[in-house]
Amino acid sequence: MRHIYIVGIGTGNPEHLTVQAINALNKVDVIFIPSKGAAKAELADVRKDICQRYVKSKAVRFIDYAVPARETADRSYVQSVDDWHAQITAIYERLFQDHMTEDGSAAFLVWGDPSLYDSTIRIIERVRALGRLAFDCSVIPGITSVQALTASHRIPLNLVGKPVQITTGRRLAESFPGMVETAVVMLDGELAFSKIDDPDAYIYWGAYLGTKDEITIAGRLADVSDRIVATRAEARAKHGWIMDIYLLRKGSDFDDQA
Amino acid sequence: MRHIYIVGIGTGNPEHLTVQAINALNKVDVIFIPSKGAAKAELADVRKDICQRYVKSKAVRFIDYAVPARETADRSYVQSVDDWHAQITAIYERLFQDHMTEDGSAAFLVWGDPSLYDSTIRIIERVRALGRLAFDCSVIPGITSVQALTASHRIPLNLVGKPVQITTGRRLAESFPGMVETAVVMLDGELAFSKIDDPDAYIYWGAYLGTKDEITIAGRLADVSDRIVATRAEARAKHGWIMDIYLLRKGSDFDDQA
Repeated sequence: MRHIYIVGIGTGNPEHLTVQAINALNKVDVIFIPSKGAAKAELADVRKDICQRYVKSKAVRFIDYAVPARETADRSYVQSVDDWHAQITAIYERLFQDHMTEDGSAAFLVWGDPSLYDSTIRIIERVRALGRLAFDCSVIPGITSVQALTASHRIPLNLVGKPVQITTGRRLAESFPGMVETAVVMLDGELAFSKIDDPDAYIYWGAYLGTKDEITIAGRLADVSDRIVATRAEARAKHGWIMDIYLLRKGSDFDDQA
Repeated sequence: MRHIYIVGIGTGNPEHLTVQAINALNKVDVIFIPSKGAAKAELADVRKDICQRYVKSKAVRFIDYAVPARETADRSYVQSVDDWHAQITAIYERLFQDHMTEDGSAAFLVWGDPSLYDSTIRIIERVRALGRLAFDCSVIPGITSVQALTASHRIPLNLVGKPVQITTGRRLAESFPGMVETAVVMLDGELAFSKIDDPDAYIYWGAYLGTKDEITIAGRLADVSDRIVATRAEARAKHGWIMDIYLLRKGSDFDDQA
């Protein structure tokens, strides 16, 4: 049976690769590499660097494929994502048919970890649901940007014994600061942090984490919010794209008397 | 200046080590190894296996130290943890004084990732706060049990565009099923999942993730809850200890019409 490996590769530092990931990349027949357009050329370079550095097996073939842009006109966010996934599902099925033997193996390289705000797993399950190809799959965990963020700031993710919410910019207001003392925000193009007015909130922000272009800013939200907005805009203009993430916190360890 | 590396080593699979972690472990003067008593001898073996497998530098020394048990009598949970951290802080300061030169380097190996429900970072900051030793420190991220869990079950952590709560057994009822559609529970000795009565909840449970003893169970909570309780009790009796984690979920991708 075909075997698909969904391999987490960390956030852009080639040294985020795990031994398990390196071993998987060296035992497959083919590695599928998406081309996402010139704007993220730096990220594509990191992916190539990872393959050159770690894939020592000469038997591994590299197959490029194009990823369509997500259409947003005339449809809801959910419909837009669903349509986009359907398109990619068809592309994946074609890749498996055209480039794998019936007992062959292949890998996808996923930024961060395949479980977190990435849809490779669910798209591969959609290929399976089409029912035309039999395959097995394995997921190999990778370092997430959540961990790269806390490592760069040298902070714990949670307060002692307390919960953490991982959320999006769109949903942040539902949880922080009202509901949880720690929120991590991914996928925020709307600067949701800048709309929070809480004198006790702290922010730990990072962009391009793990890469040579890494930027981090931390401090009381009211003090550093404007600086993050400006730094973010400047970096985005310079690179043509940005991947950033931040942690918001109120309270401290041991401040509940439970 | 002294330099301390706090190195995440994953959940028990030696192949969870990242290249960054392996490089750090080979460049330090000393690796501090805690001895935690015989009950977790299997875990201590994994730690030794990791060092033997990856630490090729002959210059690295290994220093064992004893970790005190946390005292729980006559004090609150918070006081108990705080006292315990104070004891370990004193031990760490002594380790740095006795086993490191003033410009030496040392590493601590942390299960999973140093940011998540681990106190090495905050204890090292307490050593710094004592003000008697100058040092710098770096955190090297590792694979968490959250990622090991979702990888073993081959599931995404979040539903599309939706938040995830990471919490403890004690706090689970505050968030799931009322507040979030995905909750991940670590540190649950009280079987909090078994007290949830929701016909639409699913659970993805795992123990000893990444090790040869890994066990996973998934299904509708109402259907598999009793089996998890029984399997957990049996495994705990057999090994003398258990480390487990689970994900609870309600709802599905694209079920909101936003």
